[in-house]
Amino acid sequence: MRTIDLIQRKRNGEELLPEEIDWLVSSYTRGEIPDYQMSAFLMAVYFQDMNDVEVGAMVQSIIASGEKLDLSGVAGPKVDKHSTGGVGDKTSLIAAPLAAAAGVKVPMISGRALGHTGGTLDKLESIPGFNTAISTEQFIAQLNEIGIAMAGQSPTMTPADGKLYSLRDATATIESTALIAASIMSKKLASSLDGLVLDVKVGSGAFMKRQIDARRLAQLMTTIARRADLRCQALITDMSQPLGYAVGNALEIMEVSQTLQNGGPVDLTRISLELAARMIHIGGLTESLDDAREVAQARLLDGSGYAKLKQVIDAQGGNSQVLDRFDLLPNATGAMEITSPRAGFVSMIDAEEIGSASTMIGAGRDTKEASIDPAVGVILEVKVGQRVEAGSVLCRLYYTGEERLEDAAERIEDAFRISTTVPEARELILEIVG
Amino acid sequence: MRTIDLIQRKRNGEELLPEEIDWLVSSYTRGEIPDYQMSAFLMAVYFQDMNDVEVGAMVQSIIASGEKLDLSGVAGPKVDKHSTGGVGDKTSLIAAPLAAAAGVKVPMISGRALGHTGGTLDKLESIPGFNTAISTEQFIAQLNEIGIAMAGQSPTMTPADGKLYSLRDATATIESTALIAASIMSKKLASSLDGLVLDVKVGSGAFMKRQIDARRLAQLMTTIARRADLRCQALITDMSQPLGYAVGNALEIMEVSQTLQNGGPVDLTRISLELAARMIHIGGLTESLDDAREVAQARLLDGSGYAKLKQVIDAQGGNSQVLDRFDLLPNATGAMEITSPRAGFVSMIDAEEIGSASTMIGAGRDTKEASIDPAVGVILEVKVGQRVEAGSVLCRLYYTGEERLEDAAERIEDAFRISTTVPEARELILEIVG
Repeated sequence: MRTIDLIQRKRNGEELLPEEIDWLVSSYTRGEIPDYQMSAFLMAVYFQDMNDVEVGAMVQSIIASGEKLDLSGVAGPKVDKHSTGGVGDKTSLIAAPLAAAAGVKVPMISGRALGHTGGTLDKLESIPGFNTAISTEQFIAQLNEIGIAMAGQSPTMTPADGKLYSLRDATATIESTALIAASIMSKKLASSLDGLVLDVKVGSGAFMKRQIDARRLAQLMTTIARRADLRCQALITDMSQPLGYAVGNALEIMEVSQTLQNGGPVDLTRISLELAARMIHIGGLTESLDDAREVAQARLLDGSGYAKLKQVIDAQGGNSQVLDRFDLLPNATGAMEITSPRAGFVSMIDAEEIGSASTMIGAGRDTKEASIDPAVGVILEVKVGQRVEAGSVLCRLYYTGEERLEDAAERIEDAFRISTTVPEARELILEIVG
Repeated sequence: MRTIDLIQRKRNGEELLPEEIDWLVSSYTRGEIPDYQMSAFLMAVYFQDMNDVEVGAMVQSIIASGEKLDLSGVAGPKVDKHSTGGVGDKTSLIAAPLAAAAGVKVPMISGRALGHTGGTLDKLESIPGFNTAISTEQFIAQLNEIGIAMAGQSPTMTPADGKLYSLRDATATIESTALIAASIMSKKLASSLDGLVLDVKVGSGAFMKRQIDARRLAQLMTTIARRADLRCQALITDMSQPLGYAVGNALEIMEVSQTLQNGGPVDLTRISLELAARMIHIGGLTESLDDAREVAQARLLDGSGYAKLKQVIDAQGGNSQVLDRFDLLPNATGAMEITSPRAGFVSMIDAEEIGSASTMIGAGRDTKEASIDPAVGVILEVKVGQRVEAGSVLCRLYYTGEERLEDAAERIEDAFRISTTVPEARELILEIVG
């Protein structure tokens, strides 16, 4: 096999054989194919795409590049939940404790913020003391004892994915449905799960801007899961405006706390409950999905989800009192109000712009090396559809430094559209795939 | 400027600014942009193309990466001829001496064989003693004394092109019209020419398989030349069957000799005369193109073109007697006849297959590192349109080793189509651009 021939065939729109994909990925991981050939191949994939079989082969090859997470010592159904990334998307921190409180084992392996989207690990690390780099032994022990563990990926798992992702990040080849699916599913299939619930975000704040692309990604991932005998469902959910009101790491932890005490935003509560219900149902703990929805609701109302999150925080070295005393979390030093220029209805809150503005003041990272300021972010005061007066506060920016603050404020002003008519209501959960 | 942003914008189909293209090429040449980003950019260009202005900027940037060839010390019109590459294409070795015999100064900088197409340098080096690596001083002296010099490119000229070409060669990004145009025109514009005649080949034996692509390449190159005040014309010529009868380095030198003595194949003679006439006319040596055609014809008939080639060979260390005594050229040790399976008319001689078969037995190189056997190749006994009987010899394979010989013979058999009806005649010179 010659790398150049495989690049050329993919460039010409041909389908590669599973053994060819495997040879490419494994040779690249061993350093036998140079970066410059792999990046040309990835750009060819960006334009010519890969089908289910090709992506499936890539997934298997990425898994084979490292060690699998052996969860055979964990009793009970092991179900993870994964989101493709959004703005204000803290559902993992709500759905996972609810599902765990219902008896699901949740081995949650999460990522970090990149670009305008947030990352679960960064949110958790805004809790003083919280350790996301726990050992595999602790991870498994915690699953058995508490039913939930939250960590970053072990460097011995799917090393090919790490190498490919870095290369894609530097060569403008992130935005390929096939490559996104391969990256996500290789990590999930290497974790020996029994079930997986995917939350594929669509809209300005998501990677996928159009529903047709989100659907294709959801179909690709659920197909790969089915071939690997992993029970899997994907929800396609709206990310045109931020989820909930809070955007920013510590700010989102506060909203998680409120939501697990049944005092959170309607949209966030609704999606989190649905995700938890799907995790419970896919884990086989209830006969029907409706039963699972009742269980999730009950775990919210009786506070056991909230208690579960506290247990995880304590187990992983954090101070769980932060959920009751927000002054123990990192706090911003300044706040700036953004007000409405006129009366009307909020017809748009562009999630990408809000996410980018938060990143500018330190809530996210533009590059993988950048550090994060856990205290800063944005709290919306309104959501799409709400009536505002001229001068009404639309949101508040919480900051610790004034660098890039004005630019961020301008971006946020641009993110809001105030119109004279009531905007059409948008569905929160758009489709179920799988 | 960030490389990733430029890759992404090109990937998205946007036009880059001249200063952005220049920054990319110059940073890459200085080693400040890694190969893996440049190869992703080149693949994006393959899919999204570049317009005249972008290619023009790339050309200028490639020229600026090295030294220009200073020909100010050469009196008279300096006109080169360049072919995009074909099978059996030895026109340079005929047209250049004819034009030089008419008073044109021909600073011919040529390339080597790659893939199924031949290279002028390899053909010249089949002449014992011929040195294609002469100094710039000798190159200029020869132009003043004989009117013609034939050499490979100096490593100090357009180093960016060499670096980019190697990368393209390894990443399946050779076949981009924009990148081909940038590569050719940067080398030609760095040679301080007064005029340039381009022979853009189209058909199975050429890079461009379709006339529409050949036309686009011809238009792009002549536009770039016009912007740089270089008089330039492009002929689009047929490369569906090999040009002339001989394919292979020493074999082609023999055919060149016959043609310059007015005993060569009709198609080769016709194109060579037309190219020489265009060089003479573009060099301003005649008022009209028809006058130039008469001059070229006269230089063929009076043997002064033939004498000019002998002068060049002697000046560059070769033995010019080879043009009269073919036994002084490298000779093959074996010959194999390919015969017609049935009576009929030759309706196709696939130039790419003939070129590939020649390469297999050593006439060309599959990789840049491979060495060439100057003696081997193919001599056609028929051309398209000719009537043959069952068992008629279609061509002879000249070889020195039997490795891959059977495979090559099979390829050649497949290259011929014998049909019952007379095929439609094909134009040799399809279009003139510029």
